[in-house]
Amino acid sequence: MKATAELQIIPIGNGVSVREEITRVVSLLDNYAFIVQTHASGTNIEGEMEDILDAVRSIHKALHDTGTVRIVSYLKLETRTDKTPTLAGKQL
Amino acid sequence: MKATAELQIIPIGNGVSVREEITRVVSLLDNYAFIVQTHASGTNIEGEMEDILDAVRSIHKALHDTGTVRIVSYLKLETRTDKTPTLAGKQL
Amino acid sequence: MKATAELQIIPIGNGVSVREEITRVVSLLDNYAFIVQTHASGTNIEGEMEDILDAVRSIHKALHDTGTVRIVSYLKLETRTDKTPTLAGKQL
Amino acid sequence: MKATAELQIIPIGNGVSVREEITRVVSLLDNYAFIVQTHASGTNIEGEMEDILDAVRSIHKALHDTGTVRIVSYLKLETRTDKTPTLAGKQL
Repeated sequence: MKATAELQIIPIGNGVSVREEITRVVSLLDNYAFIVQTHASGTNIEGEMEDILDAVRSIHKALHDTGTVRIVSYLKLETRTDKTPTLAGKQL
Repeated sequence: MKATAELQIIPIGNGVSVREEITRVVSLLDNYAFIVQTHASGTNIEGEMEDILDAVRSIHKALHDTGTVRIVSYLKLETRTDKTPTLAGKQL
Repeated sequence: MKATAELQIIPIGNGVSVREEITRVVSLLDNYAFIVQTHASGTNIEGEMEDILDAVRSIHKALHDTGTVRIVSYLKLETRTDKTPTLAGKQL
Repeated sequence: MKATAELQIIPIGNGVSVREEITRVVSLLDNYAFIVQTHASGTNIEGEMEDILDAVRSIHKALHDTGTVRIVSYLKLETRTDKTPTLAGKQL
């Protein structure tokens, strides 16, 4: 089922700057057939719900594998049955 | 990998009260080997990260199957490698 | 103190479409000296922390005054003391 | 206007453990006429909307004043006009 989502990743314990980890997160999303829109507070994603949930899993795993000790992620996931959800359709 | 999480589900378009849907969401979590703690703003979950992500998928599907047109969920997911994350360990 | 923020407003009980309310929310932000960036999942804001918090208050009030029965808002608020936070500085 | 809320505070750059800061956050809430319920993922609050927003401001300020360099807070704020919102009424 198609979904739109917003993903925010917060690595904790790595220091004040988290830019390096966030750049890696966005590059991991390239492994999926997503439409991706980064913005100042997170990353918007359009794709299959199952793929989006799998991406969250793989991002936690990848950041831990390279040394991040603690990760908090926030996933906002939206699905609807009256029409196909798209990021374009949610833009004002 | 073990994780702690908080899940909030907001059905949209069903009316002002969402209690019935939220009760169903919590009962769906019984299908998994989770520790579950409901509170006034959501449901805290302790379990395998993969199971938590699968539960989000199955909740969206189940609510749509019974007529909810639009669903927004918020999943906060926490993992850490320095110790096993538990809900008990996060209580003040 | 300067802050960056993301605001998401979910009117509940008005029906499946919430576009009209979201458009009003964004126009209310024009009453403040903010830098505003709308995106598919919310609105990013740069401004004084006190003004951002006051905007949340005025948005809840304005939507209720025109008939929205129930409102859930999500405010992500970020402040830091090592440099002035900006939306531009948070873009990848 | 009365509101219910959930507040999550994430200090960034202080190290992997954030328990000390969270304990201070909860004690700062004692300065307001709130009903407060801590849980494993955050703190639920019932009180006047204006007071809740002021508490967010004072918490950011207090944590910065004692050395926290970067703070991300998440405030979920709920108001409704059909009845007085309470934490007790949101418990399943």
